[in-house]
Amino acid sequence: MNIITISREFGSGGRELGKRIADALGYAYYDREIITAIAEKHEMNEHYVENVLENGFPTAFPISYGRTFSFTDVAGQHAIDLLSTQCTLLKELAARENCVIVGRSANVILEEYNPLNIFVYADLESKIKRCRERASENESLTDNEMKKKFKQIDAGRAKHQRFLSDAKWGDKSGYHMCINTSGLVIKNIAPVVADFAKHYFECI
Amino acid sequence: MNIITISREFGSGGRELGKRIADALGYAYYDREIITAIAEKHEMNEHYVENVLENGFPTAFPISYGRTFSFTDVAGQHAIDLLSTQCTLLKELAARENCVIVGRSANVILEEYNPLNIFVYADLESKIKRCRERASENESLTDNEMKKKFKQIDAGRAKHQRFLSDAKWGDKSGYHMCINTSGLVIKNIAPVVADFAKHYFECI
Repeated sequence: MNIITISREFGSGGRELGKRIADALGYAYYDREIITAIAEKHEMNEHYVENVLENGFPTAFPISYGRTFSFTDVAGQHAIDLLSTQCTLLKELAARENCVIVGRSANVILEEYNPLNIFVYADLESKIKRCRERASENESLTDNEMKKKFKQIDAGRAKHQRFLSDAKWGDKSGYHMCINTSGLVIKNIAPVVADFAKHYFECI
Repeated sequence: MNIITISREFGSGGRELGKRIADALGYAYYDREIITAIAEKHEMNEHYVENVLENGFPTAFPISYGRTFSFTDVAGQHAIDLLSTQCTLLKELAARENCVIVGRSANVILEEYNPLNIFVYADLESKIKRCRERASENESLTDNEMKKKFKQIDAGRAKHQRFLSDAKWGDKSGYHMCINTSGLVIKNIAPVVADFAKHYFECI
């Protein structure tokens, strides 16, 4: 199977790029569906599952986290169970069909499948602009609050990958291509990346 | 003018990629020609000029370095003069025609021209393989000697850029695209990168 993983800085347009690459190549696309599937399997609240998997392993747990009840001392076990389910699920997807997977440390979890690993990033100005365009009317963060949010989310992604691999999140040596989307139109670069993917899968 | 700069790890195939992109786009291509022009202007030995500009500013100077004669204490001045000529020359080229420039810290020297900056890299195994394929019969370095050579040359490039800019050589934030050529056929990815370049120049 041909697997493309997209790792991305928050606000860089990586998710849109992944979706468009999948469309261009006729591949399946997985992003939030993975969180939904994990939450269903564990009968947990999606938001809680996402929080644990996106932001690394929490040091403080909420008293209530969805449909299950648990004491604080088993919360660490929950985190490990969620990650284990994520690994199993990703491997099932990778064995089933050509696909693009956004986030979820799929680049390291699926290493044995020789995925094409892409990292998407952008400068701060572009990320703020992109987030403002997407934001709902009720969400009015200042630039500084946005920077803080970017930093926090990306730190969580890095922390998550660090738990799984020695390969540093965002270090170009762990990816086949890194794309800076600053000032670019995602729609227009998606076919270019799709072409690169085609070539990569011809070579391996 | 549309300017593409290629920075690259030694042995990653960046030079070939640059040449093929230039051919695909019908752009001029500059690489060694720049060293030749600087050497001619200063009436110096090309090898000496290259050594100073590629490996950063030497701490030990040869007694004789080409057609000129000089005392050691003016050698530092020479290095600055060479770099100054390089900057002037690169800016003349950038103002003259669409082009691809390989190395020479063109990415930072030509910042005001909004170049498309590409970084080319590869894993150690691929770089060794590529260098062995290109090497003459007389050149028989061991793997360890090759690694040492890669490290030394790349350190020189990084040092050179550090003299000109705060942007760290090889740090992806300073480039629009970073391409890992490990296991790839340069001839086949060149058209993809050329397409990316076309899109970039349409956007800026």
